[in-house]
Parts: sequence; C-alpha cells; structure tokens
Amino acid sequence: MAEAITSLQNRRIKDLVALSEKSRLRREKMVFTVEGRREVSRCMAAGFQVLEIYWCPDLVDEGEVDSLLAGSPAAGAARPEIFEVSQAVYSKIAYREGTEGMVAVVRCREHSLENLHVGENPLVVVLESVEKPGNLGAILRTADAAGVSAVIVCDPLCDLYNPNLLRASTGGIFTVPVAVCSSEEAVAWLRAHSVQILTAQLQDSSPYYDIDFVRGTAVVFGTEATGLSGYWRAQADRHVIIPMLSRLDSLNVATSVAILCYEAVRQRINKK
Amino acid sequence: MAEAITSLQNRRIKDLVALSEKSRLRREKMVFTVEGRREVSRCMAAGFQVLEIYWCPDLVDEGEVDSLLAGSPAAGAARPEIFEVSQAVYSKIAYREGTEGMVAVVRCREHSLENLHVGENPLVVVLESVEKPGNLGAILRTADAAGVSAVIVCDPLCDLYNPNLLRASTGGIFTVPVAVCSSEEAVAWLRAHSVQILTAQLQDSSPYYDIDFVRGTAVVFGTEATGLSGYWRAQADRHVIIPMLSRLDSLNVATSVAILCYEAVRQRINKK
Repeated sequence: MAEAITSLQNRRIKDLVALSEKSRLRREKMVFTVEGRREVSRCMAAGFQVLEIYWCPDLVDEGEVDSLLAGSPAAGAARPEIFEVSQAVYSKIAYREGTEGMVAVVRCREHSLENLHVGENPLVVVLESVEKPGNLGAILRTADAAGVSAVIVCDPLCDLYNPNLLRASTGGIFTVPVAVCSSEEAVAWLRAHSVQILTAQLQDSSPYYDIDFVRGTAVVFGTEATGLSGYWRAQADRHVIIPMLSRLDSLNVATSVAILCYEAVRQRINKK
Repeated sequence: MAEAITSLQNRRIKDLVALSEKSRLRREKMVFTVEGRREVSRCMAAGFQVLEIYWCPDLVDEGEVDSLLAGSPAAGAARPEIFEVSQAVYSKIAYREGTEGMVAVVRCREHSLENLHVGENPLVVVLESVEKPGNLGAILRTADAAGVSAVIVCDPLCDLYNPNLLRASTGGIFTVPVAVCSSEEAVAWLRAHSVQILTAQLQDSSPYYDIDFVRGTAVVFGTEATGLSGYWRAQADRHVIIPMLSRLDSLNVATSVAILCYEAVRQRINKK
C-alpha cells in the first residue's frame, strides 16, 4: 500500500468531504460516500461498485480491509483503490461520531423503473415527495426487514445518497430495490403490473386490517407536511387508514409504513 | 403585560437556555422547557403546570396567547407568568429551527408507579434502559396513537424532558401515562396487575401474530445496543419475535414497538 495520507490539505481528502456534504456534487459525479465497515461490506455484497476505500489503521485492522477486498467485486468492476489515512484525517472525513475507521467512495446506481424487476404479487411502497432523508432511510430499513419487493420514490425532495439517509437505512439503501420516477410513471408501472393502489388517507377509508394485502399491493404515502396529492388520491383503488386511538394527530410516515408492511407480512404468512 | 425582554444578557433568558441544554438543571429544579404553540397547548390540556410563557409578537398573535391562558389551568395551579421577547431573544431561546414563537417553562411530573392507574386488560410498553431520546419520543408518539395504557421506563439512560424527546413525541410525553422505576419494581407491578410479560427476543420465540394480545399485556424492549438483560428474559411469560424477511439484522426499537402495539390494536378491535 502507498504512504498514508496525513495532510488535511490533500486534494482527495478535500473532495471526499465535499462529496458527503454536497448533494449537487454527488449528482454531478454519480458517486457517493459510505461510512463504516459494516455499511461498506453490505454495499459491496449488494453489488455496488466501490471505487475508493479510505481506512485508518488506528481504528481498523488491516485484515478487515483485506477480507473486504477478498469478496467478489461487482460484475466488471475494477478493484477499489485503497488509501491509508491518519487519525486526524479520518476525523475530518468521518461524517458520523464514533470510531468506525472506514469511508468508501461508491458509484451511484441508476434507479430507473425499467430496471425494477419484481415477482408475482409484489408488495411495493410508494413515497410521494418525501422530504426528510432520515424518514426515507428508516423506511428502507423497515422495507428490508419486511421483505418489501420495491420502494418507488416519486419526485423526491431529498437525495437518495444523503449521509443521514444511508445511516438511518443501516444498509437498506443497498438491499432494497429502489426506483425514482414521476408519479405518472409510477402509476403506469403499477397498472402494468396489476398492482392494487392503496393510499394512506383519512377520507372514505377502511382500517388497514380489513384490506387484502395478499394480492399485488402498493401502499402510497404523501409528504410529511401536506400528505398525498390529489393525483394519487384519484388513482387509489382503496383508501386505507391506521386508526388513531388517542389524542394526537398522526403517526410518523416511517411508522405508518412499518405497520402496513407488517400487516402484509402477517396476512401473507397466514395464507400459506 | 410588562416590557418586552430584548437583552440576551437577561437573567431569565440565560436560565431558560441553560434549562433546555442541561438535564442536570432540569432534575434539580424539576422544571423543563416546551417549545411551540401546539406543544404548549397540548401540555396545558394534559394538566401539566405551566409556570412561565415566553412569546415573540413578531411570530405569534397576542390572541393566541390569550386563548391559551383562557383554558383551565392545572388543579391548584397559578396562572403562568407571561413574558414578551424580541425576535433576537427568541432565536436565542428556541432550540428548534422554524418560527414557532413560543417557549414555556413547565413543572415536571412525578412519574411514579404508584400514580399509574390502568383499566382492565391494559396494554403496556416497557423499555429497559432506552438510550436515545429520539427513540423514546417516537415510542411515546406511537403509544398515543395506539391507545397504549402506559409506558414504563426502567432505569432510563436519557432524561424524559430532553428537548429531542419532546420534539419526537409530538406531545405523546404529555398524553401517555409514563412511569419511571427499576426493572424489579416494574415486574412486581405487572405481576400485581396480572399482566402477561412478552419480551422481544430471538431465542425460543413465537411470531408476534401467533400471540394473544387481547388479555392484559406488557411488551418489553431492551436497549438499542445490547438488547434485553437476562433479568427480563427470565421474567418473560412468552418470547415474541417480529420475523425479518431479508438481509439486515434488526428493526429500530420504535418501529418494533409500533408493529407490536398495532397488532394488539388489530386483535382487540376484531375481538369486539
């Protein structure tokens, strides 16, 4: 391995910091940063193309880096470039607290609907204009656990490779198939795949446990602030509600996703 | 009303900032701060004793303050003292972004088990040593929505009146009965109330949808980092698991609480 990077003025280090701070840069260069050994390992296992790995020998054993690299790379991908960094440099590039000791630069995926392949009777989560990266990350973590077939993000107001999203997803961004598109494209795709559209809303709605989630189903959630648009409400096959038994007004969107997706899990397992 | 406070050096303003930053101060003085009109209003409606209200005329109508005060105060409580503050002072005392325009100083409740009164067949959430205020806040928000009878927090590692907890709870900290005690006290209370103890864990466990949540039930969750202690595992009547259908390792604790509490809601409504 080459000399360790010890200067905070190093060009690569400056680029790395800028990349985790600026979504514009991530979009332009089509790369993003992943922090933490577990996350880098999950990212590689999911077939993402890792371009560079920065690691700090004070925090990570060299053997861990070697075993990461021993895993098979993404199809057609070159081996990542490896850079040792001093602890001071690592503190500069680490976005999170703690002592994870590893940051990677990874190629973004194309999240097109055309690349989205699902089996029979898929369970799909559709999010309209979700705003908070932490919420989208939490939804991806839950979607992984519930075995959701795909998450379709329509007209997102946050960037899929935002560090807060990655962190909250605990790797769900790597394991769950995600497509980004317009609402119109999403509806066309769902209709073409014979997937019923359930919208989470208050008016004319049925409690979620009275709805059949065994057939191909998409549950659609609106933004945190203003809820679903009229467009989606009009597309709904059924409106679904999670009963509120007390005094406050609503559940967090990631919590609502969890309740509906696990109702689908329950119904599908009981049906077998 | 008196003169508006315009100086950042004002003693009350300095105390207020210290109070939202330091849990030690909150414990010593047995008061905490609540930010936002909706939150202050919910706090008063729940019978908490509001001691002082600071409001900024650039952000809130005086009429809103008047209508808050027109609500009935907590039993035996004096009317709160009201202070107008300049926008610069408000920016200093506001913990959150946005332009809410109101901060109150409120008396802490005693969260003793003795004061906890539940009806027949209660649904109780027990949390062992929860670490992250945001998680506890999210759990209280969900507990409100699911009509949970009580949340029992054993040996908490965070403070109930932490600003991040208040924010995530969106008022759940005011509406949900909460007791703080040792694990031993919690077990004694649950046994005395004939409440079955379900622990969320992997070993020897049944899927949550195969468990009867209609009878009096407590679901017990461990810390984010290390899970449930041996003590609680040994106390369990049954072990419950939420199946993980994919590759990652776990659900967030607040998400797990939501899935189990809403399974209880579903079973209890279907039983009627």
